[in-house]
Amino acid sequence: MSKIYKCSFEVRGYELDSFGHVNNAVYLRYLEHARWKMLEEEGITLKKIRASKRWPVISRVEISYKRPLFMGDAIEIETRIVSHQKASFTIEQRIFRQGTLVSDAKLKSVVVDETGRPVGLPEEFLQLGRQLGNHHEH
Amino acid sequence: MSKIYKCSFEVRGYELDSFGHVNNAVYLRYLEHARWKMLEEEGITLKKIRASKRWPVISRVEISYKRPLFMGDAIEIETRIVSHQKASFTIEQRIFRQGTLVSDAKLKSVVVDETGRPVGLPEEFLQLGRQLGNHHEH
Amino acid sequence: MSKIYKCSFEVRGYELDSFGHVNNAVYLRYLEHARWKMLEEEGITLKKIRASKRWPVISRVEISYKRPLFMGDAIEIETRIVSHQKASFTIEQRIFRQGTLVSDAKLKSVVVDETGRPVGLPEEFLQLGRQLGNHHEH
Amino acid sequence: MSKIYKCSFEVRGYELDSFGHVNNAVYLRYLEHARWKMLEEEGITLKKIRASKRWPVISRVEISYKRPLFMGDAIEIETRIVSHQKASFTIEQRIFRQGTLVSDAKLKSVVVDETGRPVGLPEEFLQLGRQLGNHHEH
Repeated sequence: MSKIYKCSFEVRGYELDSFGHVNNAVYLRYLEHARWKMLEEEGITLKKIRASKRWPVISRVEISYKRPLFMGDAIEIETRIVSHQKASFTIEQRIFRQGTLVSDAKLKSVVVDETGRPVGLPEEFLQLGRQLGNHHEH
Repeated sequence: MSKIYKCSFEVRGYELDSFGHVNNAVYLRYLEHARWKMLEEEGITLKKIRASKRWPVISRVEISYKRPLFMGDAIEIETRIVSHQKASFTIEQRIFRQGTLVSDAKLKSVVVDETGRPVGLPEEFLQLGRQLGNHHEH
Repeated sequence: MSKIYKCSFEVRGYELDSFGHVNNAVYLRYLEHARWKMLEEEGITLKKIRASKRWPVISRVEISYKRPLFMGDAIEIETRIVSHQKASFTIEQRIFRQGTLVSDAKLKSVVVDETGRPVGLPEEFLQLGRQLGNHHEH
Repeated sequence: MSKIYKCSFEVRGYELDSFGHVNNAVYLRYLEHARWKMLEEEGITLKKIRASKRWPVISRVEISYKRPLFMGDAIEIETRIVSHQKASFTIEQRIFRQGTLVSDAKLKSVVVDETGRPVGLPEEFLQLGRQLGNHHEH
């Protein structure tokens, strides 16, 4: 099984929309935050990413919204790289509030160069993939 | 075929993220904007929605990101209700830049009451569904 | 001296703009978050505010940006009501990172009714003012 | 008198906060958008700014909120460089809705290098200053 990264934080008041709950787009922000935390935990900083001239971008998201989120809610996000390919990762992320599943998502992240073309993973990502993914796909 | 709603607008500079392109979460904002425009075109305003005490919320999104977007890009969004059920809609949305597909998405929207429970569609939504959806699903 | 409310949190990766630092507008989001926390600490929730049909809105902001903020920065915000008038508050807020002043701001908040007209403070705000403001201005 | 730059656009539904109006922080986003448009009009693109390794950052904002903004409101922003100094600009911006003043702001923008230190203006900004500012301050 691949490693599960966890991060916890709180819904902020300014993230509510005109319906008084967290807007669906903000869930993607939360997931991004959790992915940054995962990379950080593995020593992959924004600075290093920039220096590598290769960037991870999201090419597909499938997300289900199970529960609304409100100001002050304490949430936990689990992030897991489920497989990696030559130039991409498949990632699963789940948002919980006190043990209850609020949202689950499956994302595909592609590593691109400055022109936006998919390229092989930088060495650091590759190592991350090696450590994590026992589901290497061809 | 169901009606295709179109709206056009421009990417704003403050919508770029630290990679210099439009962040993936902002695409969902754009899609939301286009859905508001669709509702507006059918005479369904935020005020009416509030008065009805029933809100459309997004329960699922599947979105593919085909192209990056940059500041000043002129985009067009096509929105189409492909089917409606008792308390929900299935919607397809596509983002174009000068005729090139930038992103396509399939969303499920559920109408809920104040407690967040799925309820039947308000009369106005129903009419919208009747007009649009020749793909009524049970 | 009036009470100083403190709250601490962390800069999230998605709050960076295309220059790689926290965008100036996001500082106002942070200040809003800190004001929500202050109200919460005094038992004034969004729900109560809605029930009172009176809302605090910001009528003026003067803010100085002293330092940039980056992903992962741990910040602390101090919020202080420095005076209250019939229908408004003057608030001072300061953002720190490890004891260094990052930004300071002075804001004026007006309480309005549903039509947007300034009205007297709700009883709960008044009590908050009485407790805090020894600088009652006429 | 210095040149007045104008740009027009529409409030988007996702820019409303939990009170149903445009949040105060979003006004700063709008002002930023208008400044980007001004720079663009003068041929100063994000790409050129990045290449110059000097960035304009906001060091101070004083903004008054006169009117709320709602979804669909058509707004016009006037932007004017009122003076320029060695490494900075003073800018005035006003937001209108159908001729009515919604917000006015005075901002100070400082040009910094990669380390965040204020530096002299790049040649292109200088030219912009020369054209616009007959109020050169020392």
